[in-house]
Amino acid sequence: MRKICVVIPSRSDYGSIKSAVKEIDKKAKLQIVACGAALIERFGNAVEYIKKDGFHVDAEIDMLVEGDTPMVMAKTTGLGIIEMSTVLNNLKPDIVLSVGDRYETMATAISASYMNIPLAQTMCGEISGTVDETTRHAITKMAHIHFPASKDAYDRVIKMGEDPKHIYLVGCPRIDSVLNDKVSLDGLFTDYKGVGGEFSLDEPFLLVSQHSVTTEYVKARIQIEETLQAIKLLRIPTIMLWSNPDAGSDAIAKGIRTFREKNETEWLHLFTNLPPEVYSALMDKCSCLIGNSSSALREGAVIGVPAVNIGTRQNGREHGDNVVDVGYDIVEITNAILSQVKHGKYQPNYMYGDGHAGEQIADILSTCKLDIHKRMTY
Amino acid sequence: MRKICVVIPSRSDYGSIKSAVKEIDKKAKLQIVACGAALIERFGNAVEYIKKDGFHVDAEIDMLVEGDTPMVMAKTTGLGIIEMSTVLNNLKPDIVLSVGDRYETMATAISASYMNIPLAQTMCGEISGTVDETTRHAITKMAHIHFPASKDAYDRVIKMGEDPKHIYLVGCPRIDSVLNDKVSLDGLFTDYKGVGGEFSLDEPFLLVSQHSVTTEYVKARIQIEETLQAIKLLRIPTIMLWSNPDAGSDAIAKGIRTFREKNETEWLHLFTNLPPEVYSALMDKCSCLIGNSSSALREGAVIGVPAVNIGTRQNGREHGDNVVDVGYDIVEITNAILSQVKHGKYQPNYMYGDGHAGEQIADILSTCKLDIHKRMTY
Amino acid sequence: MRKICVVIPSRSDYGSIKSAVKEIDKKAKLQIVACGAALIERFGNAVEYIKKDGFHVDAEIDMLVEGDTPMVMAKTTGLGIIEMSTVLNNLKPDIVLSVGDRYETMATAISASYMNIPLAQTMCGEISGTVDETTRHAITKMAHIHFPASKDAYDRVIKMGEDPKHIYLVGCPRIDSVLNDKVSLDGLFTDYKGVGGEFSLDEPFLLVSQHSVTTEYVKARIQIEETLQAIKLLRIPTIMLWSNPDAGSDAIAKGIRTFREKNETEWLHLFTNLPPEVYSALMDKCSCLIGNSSSALREGAVIGVPAVNIGTRQNGREHGDNVVDVGYDIVEITNAILSQVKHGKYQPNYMYGDGHAGEQIADILSTCKLDIHKRMTY
Amino acid sequence: MRKICVVIPSRSDYGSIKSAVKEIDKKAKLQIVACGAALIERFGNAVEYIKKDGFHVDAEIDMLVEGDTPMVMAKTTGLGIIEMSTVLNNLKPDIVLSVGDRYETMATAISASYMNIPLAQTMCGEISGTVDETTRHAITKMAHIHFPASKDAYDRVIKMGEDPKHIYLVGCPRIDSVLNDKVSLDGLFTDYKGVGGEFSLDEPFLLVSQHSVTTEYVKARIQIEETLQAIKLLRIPTIMLWSNPDAGSDAIAKGIRTFREKNETEWLHLFTNLPPEVYSALMDKCSCLIGNSSSALREGAVIGVPAVNIGTRQNGREHGDNVVDVGYDIVEITNAILSQVKHGKYQPNYMYGDGHAGEQIADILSTCKLDIHKRMTY
Repeated sequence: MRKICVVIPSRSDYGSIKSAVKEIDKKAKLQIVACGAALIERFGNAVEYIKKDGFHVDAEIDMLVEGDTPMVMAKTTGLGIIEMSTVLNNLKPDIVLSVGDRYETMATAISASYMNIPLAQTMCGEISGTVDETTRHAITKMAHIHFPASKDAYDRVIKMGEDPKHIYLVGCPRIDSVLNDKVSLDGLFTDYKGVGGEFSLDEPFLLVSQHSVTTEYVKARIQIEETLQAIKLLRIPTIMLWSNPDAGSDAIAKGIRTFREKNETEWLHLFTNLPPEVYSALMDKCSCLIGNSSSALREGAVIGVPAVNIGTRQNGREHGDNVVDVGYDIVEITNAILSQVKHGKYQPNYMYGDGHAGEQIADILSTCKLDIHKRMTY
Repeated sequence: MRKICVVIPSRSDYGSIKSAVKEIDKKAKLQIVACGAALIERFGNAVEYIKKDGFHVDAEIDMLVEGDTPMVMAKTTGLGIIEMSTVLNNLKPDIVLSVGDRYETMATAISASYMNIPLAQTMCGEISGTVDETTRHAITKMAHIHFPASKDAYDRVIKMGEDPKHIYLVGCPRIDSVLNDKVSLDGLFTDYKGVGGEFSLDEPFLLVSQHSVTTEYVKARIQIEETLQAIKLLRIPTIMLWSNPDAGSDAIAKGIRTFREKNETEWLHLFTNLPPEVYSALMDKCSCLIGNSSSALREGAVIGVPAVNIGTRQNGREHGDNVVDVGYDIVEITNAILSQVKHGKYQPNYMYGDGHAGEQIADILSTCKLDIHKRMTY
Repeated sequence: MRKICVVIPSRSDYGSIKSAVKEIDKKAKLQIVACGAALIERFGNAVEYIKKDGFHVDAEIDMLVEGDTPMVMAKTTGLGIIEMSTVLNNLKPDIVLSVGDRYETMATAISASYMNIPLAQTMCGEISGTVDETTRHAITKMAHIHFPASKDAYDRVIKMGEDPKHIYLVGCPRIDSVLNDKVSLDGLFTDYKGVGGEFSLDEPFLLVSQHSVTTEYVKARIQIEETLQAIKLLRIPTIMLWSNPDAGSDAIAKGIRTFREKNETEWLHLFTNLPPEVYSALMDKCSCLIGNSSSALREGAVIGVPAVNIGTRQNGREHGDNVVDVGYDIVEITNAILSQVKHGKYQPNYMYGDGHAGEQIADILSTCKLDIHKRMTY
Repeated sequence: MRKICVVIPSRSDYGSIKSAVKEIDKKAKLQIVACGAALIERFGNAVEYIKKDGFHVDAEIDMLVEGDTPMVMAKTTGLGIIEMSTVLNNLKPDIVLSVGDRYETMATAISASYMNIPLAQTMCGEISGTVDETTRHAITKMAHIHFPASKDAYDRVIKMGEDPKHIYLVGCPRIDSVLNDKVSLDGLFTDYKGVGGEFSLDEPFLLVSQHSVTTEYVKARIQIEETLQAIKLLRIPTIMLWSNPDAGSDAIAKGIRTFREKNETEWLHLFTNLPPEVYSALMDKCSCLIGNSSSALREGAVIGVPAVNIGTRQNGREHGDNVVDVGYDIVEITNAILSQVKHGKYQPNYMYGDGHAGEQIADILSTCKLDIHKRMTY
């Protein structure tokens, strides 16, 4: 039975691979490595959710170097490689499955490919802004098995010179959760605590998820403030998530904390972490999703959630009609929210898959021919 | 005046960029970082040659983790990133110029691109075997300015989705040295010492340069032994270079040392390091170049040196008529050497440039528009 | 002129060496390295205060690995050594001055002593609980020049086998600031922000500074809660400082944040960082200092501040009459505070020096004979 | 059953603990971590000997950073801590047993003590030159259980302020092997290969083992040359060992290699590694042991081998009558060798134990009360 090692560096990456993890656990010897932000309480401690879901975590890698600069992102990657190579040497997986495009993922890709272990990548071939764009495609050039989530992405991976034999259009595993794991939101505030006001979710509410754009990280504080001022104007009850650890995330956290100190914010509730299915349920129920999370474009498409996408972080990423793009500007943001709230739900769009991505990934990984030699097709 | 930082991780990489370094020093503020094998005596201590050539070395990075496994190559890269990011943060270059495709180069690429410093890459778009292939193309996806050395490579970088505006076909800087820096070989044995017999270079002699294939590193010892047995059969005076530090290089070194202990080897002389122009002069004068160095295919083309390329390390790399490919087999190797010695020099082939690569690279880097945002062209 | 390099890993260490830094700057070529928590906003960003005081920071070292376990303290030290050795190699100081006994300081001590750079240590020979105790004495065995702060500590360093020729009883530089740098507390809440209620400092108030005990770090949350419940009972206006980064500090921070969410806490104000002279002024003015900071025992002695020392962190450290020891127990803590508030100020005790430590340290370092060879005296 | 983790960083350290390892394996759950030079072929690959002896190696840590400077020794320690802390976290030993005083051992000591794992140290309390002196005593201040090898060392550990309850005078485990593991030298040259001439061991021969003095490492090349010239003068058949990896070891290796190239050296045979019992047998049979290895003073005492100790590396270390100290001077060395050869064997001296150290260490570790809190006795 093949040993398939899934490396999970953060809470959002766990959401991006959970359905595949479940299926791999049935069809192969599953190994899980949790690392980086996935181990840190203030970034959502995803490792606890993984264990609660009944999976065994084979190794944990503390690799986050503190600091709020891009230099520290590089150092984190370096430290990650040093530790990851030992972990892979101990676990001796037949395949390493790398999730998404966060910068820490580079540590997984380099360790596996330098150690001659076949590397599989999900969500490849997509287009976005920030350092994710660079990381995603560089990893594709190191990966041996490719799982693009949309037709456009599939075509792009072929064009990049990867061998079509090793490229599989499976859809996005996040969509699997959205379509298959419906959960109730009862008890949200008691179960997941967080800070701030509490309110009924039967009334209209907003959902906000805004991260730092690493290539513009010095502006992170100003960018979050525009958003906060906009939603303050509207005073619609709002659920907001703390941001991922990137260059700029401390500035965002500080912006939010200062905002809370200076304003009456009974209408605002912040969560550090939510299980992916709870987050999906919130997307399904909210009146508008605001920020720059890829979830607005990805799961958002099939959910049909009215979304306001702020700034450059998702630049170029495929999306459906449910997304309105705006700049970092209080007026643009406010108007877009109002118009989206008014519009209400959009028709589902299945561009990112129909709910069977995890199943297909597990089938392919447990049976495909493995070859560590790569060669461009041109 | 722009600060352009050239990172040099080994003796061969110095040969690959020397002509560009000279020109950058005239047209911009040159910064040099020497790292990895470039600092280690038994790998040729390239840093001393850089200093002898009159260049200031701004930082030295000890990053080689000892060991003879692929895991250690990953760890070296990790340690390199940790240190390189600090160095780049101190030097604050406007551009980082990364040389070639050795695995350590990944540390340069990740540090620069994560720190939002424009990254230029030479020798991109080429095809070869081993982990270099993966490293080279992954770095291309992180680089902002591309300097392919041949027309085929140029086309390939375009196909990979890089923006033609940032791709410059300049040829290979190694060819510059070959065509412009002719040196005498008088005093070779006194100047560069090494170990083994000494002989007249006016009589026919062989030149051998064989490195480990990282994706087959467990066979490195057997592979070098086939070569050694073949040249022992011929007993033509032979100049040989110790190999680069890769997974497998210790096994090669041990193979050579054992061979020297067990055999009478007056006909064999080994050098740890030679300046690039001396190596070129040897290529020009030798009767046949043997092994798996890319120099046989690259400078070899313009020199017209009869070459025997052993094994998979250069698989797929463009070359001229001067190269004969053989397997790791004493008979194949011996026959190919004899036939190449008999053939003598080939006509020069300018597929890798006409001697002005360094000049063009310096011109472009000192004047081009800089933009750290990347976007695939499709 | 000698190059004397002072390494400052946190806000409290800056307070412990500031008076010496000032004097070294006059008598030698001062070099400052800021590292670890000194660079992190949520741990007080001491580097900004250093710069505001007019000192040039020669190098900054990001070395804090995130996490709340002792393992991460070890990793931070390892990463620190990797970077610190490069920094020392660049700065080439004649002497490295290491401050105090935080675990990160080990990185300084190992780098300097392995690199044959004379190492000086302040505050050596003292006794306390936790990993500081181990770190402090281990560093003494690596140090070449010793600056104990009290007579007992001086005797202890001699007994440990250090050469009396290299041991100088100079007092503690923290006392210098207390005695010489009197500042006003006007504008405290505007200048240093923080969060929580604001109140007049002319009325009685408490000062709280409680850190994790690394050898009992799993109990950090419970320990802080006892303290918080005790001061909640009293409802005397209270100024509290966030804790240093150690195994357990995240648990403390979480304990405080939860306490603030669940309770009405207008009487409580939290600061992330305060300049040492402001902190001293608060000690001077407060009705009682509570927690486990060494400042209660050290500066507290000369200030005569009534102090309640909780738990084992300062176990065995010399102190004057002003300190009452209690366990982690709400009743013990409450009673001790009440009794200390009632007692009021104690007579000054000069056991930790009379205000000239910094001056003497600078004199000695700029003139003493240097010798990197060490030998035990017995 | 207690889990006792023995960390072995080099071939000589394995010799220093082998008898204890054997006994621990009987009385507790033995864990072995091999690291650093113990994994490197050119430094003797001790890990292979450990496995051949039938022990399971639980983890291997590649931590040697290449280079020949003290800075690199610091970096190796840093990298070692990063990896060692993960290994200890995985193995969860009840006790870590650290061997000797090589600089890498600091990585073990810091990881264990920061992670609140009781640390035991052998060979503590001894006096020598070089960075070993600093390392040894610093580790003593971190260790919880002490195993000095001689009465003087025992007294010194008490004087340093360690608690006599935790100090056990057990003798040196190296003596156990000398007294108990007698082996034949038949087939030495076939079994352990090496390079150079072969000769009968029934005729008089010399044994040489000389390492770099890290605090004088820039002189390592000159120092080895004096020794080589001295033994060249005598032309007595000589068995020599390559040196350990320290700052200066590459210079020593180069000195030896150059000497071999330039001289007829049929009388000289070099070994990379020998099992400890073979080395002891050579000490027992040779006419004189030359260099600066501690073995001359330690096992040498009980064997009574005539020894010439060169330079400062063993400065201050206790020894018996069998050792003559000389400087780095060809004449002094030659005369001392001649006089020692003439003297012949000395009477056994049991100052470093009577052959039961390993047994006692295993007994104590498997039964002693464990306490991670340390406090100086004064």
